[in-house]
This record gives sequence, structure tokens and C-alpha cells, in this order.
Amino acid sequence: MSREQRQALDKSLRQPRPAKPRSLEEMRADFAAMMAAMSVPGDVRTAPTTLGKRPAVRVEPEQEARPGLILYFHGGSYIMGSPYTAMSLTASLVSRTRVPSLSLDYRLAPEHPFPAALDDALEAYRELLHNGMEASSIVFAGDSAGGGIAVSACLMARAAGLPLPAAVVMFSPGLDRTHSGDSIDSKVGLDPFFTRESFAWTDQLYLAGQDPTHELASPARFADLAGFPPLLLQVGTNELLLDDSTQLADRARAAGVDVILDVTAGVPHVFQAFTGILDEADQALDRAALFIAQHL
Amino acid sequence: MSREQRQALDKSLRQPRPAKPRSLEEMRADFAAMMAAMSVPGDVRTAPTTLGKRPAVRVEPEQEARPGLILYFHGGSYIMGSPYTAMSLTASLVSRTRVPSLSLDYRLAPEHPFPAALDDALEAYRELLHNGMEASSIVFAGDSAGGGIAVSACLMARAAGLPLPAAVVMFSPGLDRTHSGDSIDSKVGLDPFFTRESFAWTDQLYLAGQDPTHELASPARFADLAGFPPLLLQVGTNELLLDDSTQLADRARAAGVDVILDVTAGVPHVFQAFTGILDEADQALDRAALFIAQHL
Repeated sequence: MSREQRQALDKSLRQPRPAKPRSLEEMRADFAAMMAAMSVPGDVRTAPTTLGKRPAVRVEPEQEARPGLILYFHGGSYIMGSPYTAMSLTASLVSRTRVPSLSLDYRLAPEHPFPAALDDALEAYRELLHNGMEASSIVFAGDSAGGGIAVSACLMARAAGLPLPAAVVMFSPGLDRTHSGDSIDSKVGLDPFFTRESFAWTDQLYLAGQDPTHELASPARFADLAGFPPLLLQVGTNELLLDDSTQLADRARAAGVDVILDVTAGVPHVFQAFTGILDEADQALDRAALFIAQHL
Repeated sequence: MSREQRQALDKSLRQPRPAKPRSLEEMRADFAAMMAAMSVPGDVRTAPTTLGKRPAVRVEPEQEARPGLILYFHGGSYIMGSPYTAMSLTASLVSRTRVPSLSLDYRLAPEHPFPAALDDALEAYRELLHNGMEASSIVFAGDSAGGGIAVSACLMARAAGLPLPAAVVMFSPGLDRTHSGDSIDSKVGLDPFFTRESFAWTDQLYLAGQDPTHELASPARFADLAGFPPLLLQVGTNELLLDDSTQLADRARAAGVDVILDVTAGVPHVFQAFTGILDEADQALDRAALFIAQHL
């Protein structure tokens, strides 16, 4: 039963953890190990490539590919992760849509703070357009920090006079470095991954003293979304980041943007990674795949 | 192009209308004529039947039916409409899901004010369960007033100790007879169908002096949604009723209920009825069909 799956997943994520702050290297290794355990569909193939000035991973369906491209931005609080840590998510979208993906290995903080990751994302998009792809055949997708990158890359593209992609898919995006939503307090203890303190630490590494009220750092609070393509926000209720999504959805509606705010109760941050374990993960991915197909 | 379709539809709905208030009989006839012009898919068949103590229309796919049932509640401000006026919507869901539907011809105000329509809805659901259907194989769906009936019927079913249906689909539901949302003011002029005055008139006919703050009259403001099944709310931004949906989504999230708030910009009330004319209508119906399939 699905309710039982949600509870079992929540329990499994509440294993005792090291009490002391770990080093960045330990966190990166732990994150890679956790995400490597996620199920990757067998009907895709991956190959390293480059995009813009950065490494990337091309993910293609084994069956004949459909037209279009998913430009994917992985999560990891801007300080960890890679296209491989998000491969379960990227490959799940590719498998379901048969649309290929390029997943960008953008620069990480603290070695490369804000806005390095965003610059890399814009550069990647610019290269796709330069190589002749139509903006209308590109969908941006990302999880967690990668969802924030997807939105901010749209803002930068618009400011640069570039056409915007066909749609944006976000899994539990981080969209507000000012953490102004109610969920930052109301979900404490329910969220098995994050605390206000953990955000303070990763924000410090990412922003490196820069202004959290910059629209590219906190688009859910400060960005003008006029002219944006259709947005899909998927988020769980057991998340400190829940209101990053509700706030962006509010702004999108006010700006006349199509927006689907797709909330699953009792599930954690980026629950879609638990495909094969949690029915809600697979169902959410199916809805995301339909959304992508509708806009390509 | 889709943006052009949205604008063309909006323009077509802004034809000059009779300035004087029309009689109830004229309104019912006009509504039936308008809705009869909507496209009905050819791969369904319909047959009159009864459900509870009321007439109903059975809508079945021509292809082999899938298990389950869509219990449909038509719109019409509680004062007009019938299963036939909503046939485009009901049949579109049946055609896409291959799940049969029963569309209820509930009693209308002012001849039968609040809560007659809701009593009929509960009675219909009770008969389905009495006849051996599992609640988990029934989805409630409705447009406009019918979306409100779907929610209120769940509240009444829960109060009566009955199991709740598997999911609820609402197209532009009316969920707040106190009209407390911002959209009641901010969308004036953008909404081609409704005004505050038109709501005052239909509310008067429906409530007949009863309390608009009753949870069954205004569930978006006053209902406890705990234990509700997954909800899909589809609504346009050119609607005075927009915030009926955003408010219900807020309450659902707070109550730990799965809820998808699916907002399409620049389209009017129950835009899904414009299937075949407006790409967004067909896309929204496809998303609703996937949602139904995921929960049956």
C-alpha cells in the first residue's frame, strides 16, 4: 500500500546520522553513495560529452529517440552532486519520454560560488541554440538546487535576449535563499534531510557573502516571471523547501504563466528518486513525462 | 498557435450579450444551447439510467471498458445544466481513460435549494457502494458547481462513516460562497462569464437564505480535508473563481492531502469544454485522464 510505502521510506531516512558536522569531502562522498543506490532504468545509455565549457553526460533512450532535448541540472545544494548523482531522475525522464537529455556538470561552490553554476547553465543553453537547436525543442529540468538553476537560467536567457525553452520541470526546487516561507519552520522535524542550520551552512558556501535577495538567488520571491514557459513544480509536504514551490507558483499565476503545483503528502525532498520503492515516485515521474511530451 | 487560440477564444466569448437580466428559463435554455455546441468524442455511447433517486446518464467507451467508475457532477451554478450540458467533459474523460461514467442529474435551485444537490450526490454514491462497488474504484469528477458538489459529497460521505472515493477531479470548481479570494476582484473584466453580481444572484437562488459559511457551501474556506483522497484542481487565470482552487489547494496541503493545482493562463472558466478548439483544453483533459488512471 502506498501510505505504508511513504511511512517506510520516511522511517528508513531517519537512521541515526553523524552528530558532528562532516567535511565537504565526506558530504560529497556520502551524497554520491546515497544517490548511486537509486534505481536507473535499463533502457537508456549514457555517454560523457561536453556542453558549453563544462563536462556533461548525454542520456539517450535505447529505443528510437523522439525529437527534442531535456537539459538537466542535478541537485546537491550547489556544493555537491554531478550528472551521475541525478542519473535516476534524468534517466527516468528519458526512459518515459524517449526524449534524450544532456545533464550538465556545472561548477560547484565553495570553489566556484554564485553565480558560477548559473553562468555554466546559460552557457550550455547558448551552445545548444548556437548549434541550431530551437528553443521550443528544449525543456529544462532539475532537482533541488538544479530546479533553481533551471529557473535562474531562464531569467538570464531572457535578459540576454534569448528565446526561452518550451517548459521547465522542477523536482523540489530550491528557489528562495532568504527562506521566507512558512515551511522553513513548520516542516522542521518532518523533513528528514534539511534543517535551518544546514541551509545556513550551504547558503554561506554558495553565496560567499553575496546578496540572498538577488533575483537569481531567490527567484521565488524576487523574479518577474512574465513570458516564462509552462512550469511544473513537484514537491513533497515533508520539506522545508515546500514553500519555495508554492511561492513560485503564486508568482507564476500572477505573471500569467501556466503552472502546475503538484504536491504529494508525506514524502521527502526529491522523492522521485525513490522510483521502484515508492509508487508516488513513479506516478510523479509519469506526470512529469506527460508534461514534457505536451510541450515538445 | 496556442497563444493565438487562447486570445481567439477569449474574443469569441466577449460577444455582446443581453443587457437586461434574463429569466431563469432563458438562462437554462441558453446554457444548454452553448454547451450543446461543445465537441463530444465519437467513441462513447450514452444511455439514460437512474442513480439513487435521480435520473442519470451512463457514458461508456465503445472499446472495452477499464475497471472503475467516474461519478460525474455537471456544472451550472446549481441552477441550470444537466448531464447533457456537461457531456463534452464527461465523454472526454471516458474516451481518454476508457473508464465508464455515471453523470448525475441532481436537483437544481431555486426549486430545490442547498443542500438538495449535495443530498442527491451522497445518495448516488451510497447506492454505488450498496451495489457492491468499492470506494477505491470510484473517482468523483465535476466542473464548476459540480466540482463543489464533488468535494462536499466527500465531506458528507466521511461524516456518514462511508469510505472516500479514490480521487477527485475538479474543473474550475466553485468552492467558496463567501467569495473571499482576491480573484473575485482582480479578475473582474478578465472573466468573460461571471461578475460579483452574477454570483450574488445565483448564490441567493442556491442558498435561499442559508449560511454561506457552512462548510458544505464553502469548503475551500471552512472544511477540514483530513483523510481526503488525491485532488486535481484545474483552473484558468481568467476566472473570478481562480482562488476557490488556490484556497482549496492550500487547505489540502495543510491537511496532508495530495493535491495538484493545475493552472492555465489566459483561459476562461471550464476551458476544458473547448476541446478541439483550444490545445490547452485537450492537454488538460489528457492530464486529468492520467490522474484518474493513476488512482484507479
